[in-house]
Amino acid sequence: MGPLRRRAIADAGGLRSVDGTVAPAGGRPGKNSVTRVAIIGVGLIGGSLGLALREARPDIEVIGIARSEDSAAAAVKRGAVTAAGADLRLASACDLVVVATPLQEMRPVFSRLGRELPKQTLVTDVGSVKRAVLDWARELIPDAGRFLGGHPMAGKSESGLRAAEPRLFQGAPWVFTPDGDQDLGRFAPLFEIVDAVGARRVVIGPDEHDRRVALVSHLAFTLSSAYGATIKASPEWREAVRIAGPGFRDMVRLAGGDPDLYTGIARTNRAALLDAVDRLQAALSKYRRHLENDDERIWELFEEVKLAHDQWERM
Amino acid sequence: MGPLRRRAIADAGGLRSVDGTVAPAGGRPGKNSVTRVAIIGVGLIGGSLGLALREARPDIEVIGIARSEDSAAAAVKRGAVTAAGADLRLASACDLVVVATPLQEMRPVFSRLGRELPKQTLVTDVGSVKRAVLDWARELIPDAGRFLGGHPMAGKSESGLRAAEPRLFQGAPWVFTPDGDQDLGRFAPLFEIVDAVGARRVVIGPDEHDRRVALVSHLAFTLSSAYGATIKASPEWREAVRIAGPGFRDMVRLAGGDPDLYTGIARTNRAALLDAVDRLQAALSKYRRHLENDDERIWELFEEVKLAHDQWERM
Repeated sequence: MGPLRRRAIADAGGLRSVDGTVAPAGGRPGKNSVTRVAIIGVGLIGGSLGLALREARPDIEVIGIARSEDSAAAAVKRGAVTAAGADLRLASACDLVVVATPLQEMRPVFSRLGRELPKQTLVTDVGSVKRAVLDWARELIPDAGRFLGGHPMAGKSESGLRAAEPRLFQGAPWVFTPDGDQDLGRFAPLFEIVDAVGARRVVIGPDEHDRRVALVSHLAFTLSSAYGATIKASPEWREAVRIAGPGFRDMVRLAGGDPDLYTGIARTNRAALLDAVDRLQAALSKYRRHLENDDERIWELFEEVKLAHDQWERM
Repeated sequence: MGPLRRRAIADAGGLRSVDGTVAPAGGRPGKNSVTRVAIIGVGLIGGSLGLALREARPDIEVIGIARSEDSAAAAVKRGAVTAAGADLRLASACDLVVVATPLQEMRPVFSRLGRELPKQTLVTDVGSVKRAVLDWARELIPDAGRFLGGHPMAGKSESGLRAAEPRLFQGAPWVFTPDGDQDLGRFAPLFEIVDAVGARRVVIGPDEHDRRVALVSHLAFTLSSAYGATIKASPEWREAVRIAGPGFRDMVRLAGGDPDLYTGIARTNRAALLDAVDRLQAALSKYRRHLENDDERIWELFEEVKLAHDQWERM
């Protein structure tokens, strides 16, 4: 096991919480069902989960597992975890493992976890796509029934630990996508921490999840990026942006997100996103047709969506 | 001349400022070059301009001209104007007239103003499209050289007087679009009020303006609406919206705007908007092609726009 970083303590030995007491790995006896959570990947989501848990449940030890010793030290310094290191084997001493790496790193992480983890350890992920992730888990993690796919619907255009914040999950849906008739009863410890950070649990099938997020999330950033590309390709973009108002800012905000994240999601949820792009192209063509014909019924298009928008605002 | 609404005073006679002193119609002698401004249309833009002027330049009398006596009374009550009425002839006692009606009402307003206004009265508008507005002005307002097209690049998705706010123009570009070699020297009084409300003056040709706002504004709301239409047309929209995060909210915000406003703009700036929609469709098709081929170069598209976005953030 590699060196373990702690707040103000460099300690390569056993898992020690910041106040110096040693928590037994098997779960502190008493009312709490979770004693030690591993978060693999301490970026925006992993870091925010750590910060939120440290605040809401100081009795739970949060072990961060980062890509490098430097990132591990940064997570400890930020207070997002009680202790951290760069060795995946640290996860084997925890009751629950949350995989919060980018999508494209999940497969190799699952493969390592499958070899290292005790059979009873619960595992979840926070990936934006669920069908592919479930397939990887089923293939690589023995007793795949202890893996439950998850997706907190919280984010911002900035990424990384620096953008992390403890309130990120407050009131946000945290979607779980059981595979077939998977037993959810054993995931009480997972739901406990999700409740603790203020998220709202939602359970849907993985394919439904992927279709729906393709529409409300993956199509949104693809479109924002394509809109940005349209501006950028215009010979007058500099002058145009100079007179741009808040509407422009709204529409390009998502285009400022992490290209690695977007690429990982787009390629992993390819079929659903393609379908969503096609639907958008069809909708836009309708506006185009009315414009071309100077058809006053373009008002009806704007009006119908405005009414829907107002309804969504209240949801 | 119809009845004139004032704050706490109902007065059908001459123009009286709220403190009871009578300002001469020809301009108060002294350092101020503007004494009385008429704002025709007291919605979001007209109302905000009134509120901002009342705050920054209490020495200027602001006369609101609304569609109905009720709207005039509301504008006085809100404090957006010093006095108001529903009769366009009120404008003839002012140094400067700002036409802040929806685009589709500008032509008839210009026609009336052309008949009523003294020859020296300066006229501007705040319409989102400039070529068509200049053509209407040239046709309907005698001595069209005293009409200068303008467009404050400020807005929000809510419309109407209730959404008005005095800070709306702070730091926002206020574009002026001289027609050919139009003399800007005579518009010092207009620039004075634009400076007073904190806007940043920008001068560009009307056709350039229309092409640029088609990209950064009109395409933005058309796209937001088309995105909303895509969601709405999905059989699962209710479930999808329920798990939507902040990215979805960003992308549909503009779709909540006023359908009359959007229709007026889209039809008045038809050619430039059509061109912008075509450019967007072409950009989106590139993302689609990479998706279909599972081409990793989709990363380059996301990355290029992300870099441009970061540059725009600093502009």
